[in-house]
Amino acid sequence: MNHDHILLAHGGGGRLSHQLITQEILTRFGSGPLASLPDAAALELDSSRIRFTTDGFVVQPLEFPGGNIGDLAVHGTVNDLAVSGARPRWLSLGLILEEGLPLTLLRRVLDSVQRAAADCGVIVATGDTKVVRRGQCDGLYITSSGIGEALPGFDLRLDRILPGDRILVSGPLGDHGAAILAAREGFENFHTPVSDSRPVHRLVEGVASLAWGIRFMRDPTRGGLATVLNEMTTGQDFGMLIRARELPFSPGTAALAEMMGLDLLHVASEGCLVMVCAAEVAEAILEFWRTLPEGEKARAIGVVTADQAGRVILESAIGGLRVVDVPSGELLPRIC
Amino acid sequence: MNHDHILLAHGGGGRLSHQLITQEILTRFGSGPLASLPDAAALELDSSRIRFTTDGFVVQPLEFPGGNIGDLAVHGTVNDLAVSGARPRWLSLGLILEEGLPLTLLRRVLDSVQRAAADCGVIVATGDTKVVRRGQCDGLYITSSGIGEALPGFDLRLDRILPGDRILVSGPLGDHGAAILAAREGFENFHTPVSDSRPVHRLVEGVASLAWGIRFMRDPTRGGLATVLNEMTTGQDFGMLIRARELPFSPGTAALAEMMGLDLLHVASEGCLVMVCAAEVAEAILEFWRTLPEGEKARAIGVVTADQAGRVILESAIGGLRVVDVPSGELLPRIC
Repeated sequence: MNHDHILLAHGGGGRLSHQLITQEILTRFGSGPLASLPDAAALELDSSRIRFTTDGFVVQPLEFPGGNIGDLAVHGTVNDLAVSGARPRWLSLGLILEEGLPLTLLRRVLDSVQRAAADCGVIVATGDTKVVRRGQCDGLYITSSGIGEALPGFDLRLDRILPGDRILVSGPLGDHGAAILAAREGFENFHTPVSDSRPVHRLVEGVASLAWGIRFMRDPTRGGLATVLNEMTTGQDFGMLIRARELPFSPGTAALAEMMGLDLLHVASEGCLVMVCAAEVAEAILEFWRTLPEGEKARAIGVVTADQAGRVILESAIGGLRVVDVPSGELLPRIC
Repeated sequence: MNHDHILLAHGGGGRLSHQLITQEILTRFGSGPLASLPDAAALELDSSRIRFTTDGFVVQPLEFPGGNIGDLAVHGTVNDLAVSGARPRWLSLGLILEEGLPLTLLRRVLDSVQRAAADCGVIVATGDTKVVRRGQCDGLYITSSGIGEALPGFDLRLDRILPGDRILVSGPLGDHGAAILAAREGFENFHTPVSDSRPVHRLVEGVASLAWGIRFMRDPTRGGLATVLNEMTTGQDFGMLIRARELPFSPGTAALAEMMGLDLLHVASEGCLVMVCAAEVAEAILEFWRTLPEGEKARAIGVVTADQAGRVILESAIGGLRVVDVPSGELLPRIC
């Protein structure tokens, strides 16, 4: 019997659950540790130092210019491992499905998970699928956890940041948030923003030989660049100065921000790396990043300062200074 | 400013999110790798052989006799690691909260997570919190992943099961499902079923010296004992015979099943271990189990047979035989 939509029975643990797992999960992810559907995947590590992360994805719409909730979950999890100085290895895939979800949509999302995982060199090692009634979910939620192995040489700590260090970003800011907003509001023109949903692990692994000069990394998702820079400086004895004329923005994202009065420093990216590093290694890192598609628009956007301790300061295009604050509440719910 | 209920802004990545994490998460789980809220937790392993699992929890009601969604998530994840022959070490805690969720309820759930994790000797190492609008979730969903370290000596494989092996269960069957059902239907009397939500890892670690004789383990959650035994036998060259008079049931659960016409072989437990082991070690394992509260009602319920290959057969109290099948669809949605 064939069904076009998810039924409650697909989550009941009986035959229909089994069919869903066999036909939709095992066909895509069943060649590795998932093959026998064990209670837990058996994994063999090369290192005893691992990194462990988790993220929930509730983005709406489920599909948007530049990606969907499936690749977003893979990239979000891979990126959390990468910015902690680890090589991403294994992911879990926890699905909560709403009764009535079209199977074609689920298949597109799972195809994206499969492609993104392959592209990142990670294996979906374990998973779980639950189904809830109509009106108890909004289509599909994903919670993904990831395990990575620590890359030798990285020692990422805020207390290694020093005045004179450089602040780098690997690409344009705010593209993901702008794409979600535009998709929700129905904006479409030749400059429609496109999500930057993509992995940053190659940007990290490729500069591992310079790890001694890398102090700290983050990916500016919810809350944007303003939030991650404030998280780095609050309570510290250094400040940060960033320069508006160095901040990279995509044309469509900048146009949308202007039209809607958005501060793009508060808007999420999903494929951007923010790095604080010693001045001596900054140019070499930028040079390498620019050889990769995901880093071709990389820029040095500012410096760590001895004054303005605990604060992030923005120098405007005409030289004015203002404090960059953290957004206080919800900018845009369900962005990721 | 104080809030009594979850607001959308608690999930926006700004100040209110930070407050929620600081006040509700860090106060309970902030002493270990979560302390600095890194993108990924840094963990140091003793073994290079790990187990990795994930489970989503969407149980309704969120609180029930014997537990709530918080300890259920911890026990479910711990148990998946335990039955794969691992010592549970670290958990992730992925929360999806519905706007309007009472903070007092969230606190009770998080208190339960904290207590259950401490009791199981596992550390909540990483987490994530999302908030969705009213009507896009049903109060609170939890997705938890777990990492365990493989216990030496265990080699758990279906192809090690042999005719003559014994089938053991560590306690009464179906108590969790019966408790959820009774709570939903509003049944209450002096025999109200109580969930068996509890960890089984001590039952595993305590018999590690007999691991050579242990073939396979599972915990009979969704789909109950019937499902896990069928998963073990389907397509194999052995069968299983279980005896009705040996199956342990709690009085309240048995009474509810009789009243509602439930087949308790299909009803979920959340703190029960099903083990297939060599006959030589069965008595020693039962003897040890019965020294622990979670194993005091342990029983040998049947044997692996050379005939009836691929099938699970139930011998009734009066000696009749019937095939035990897998439930075909939804018995009870959102049981875990």
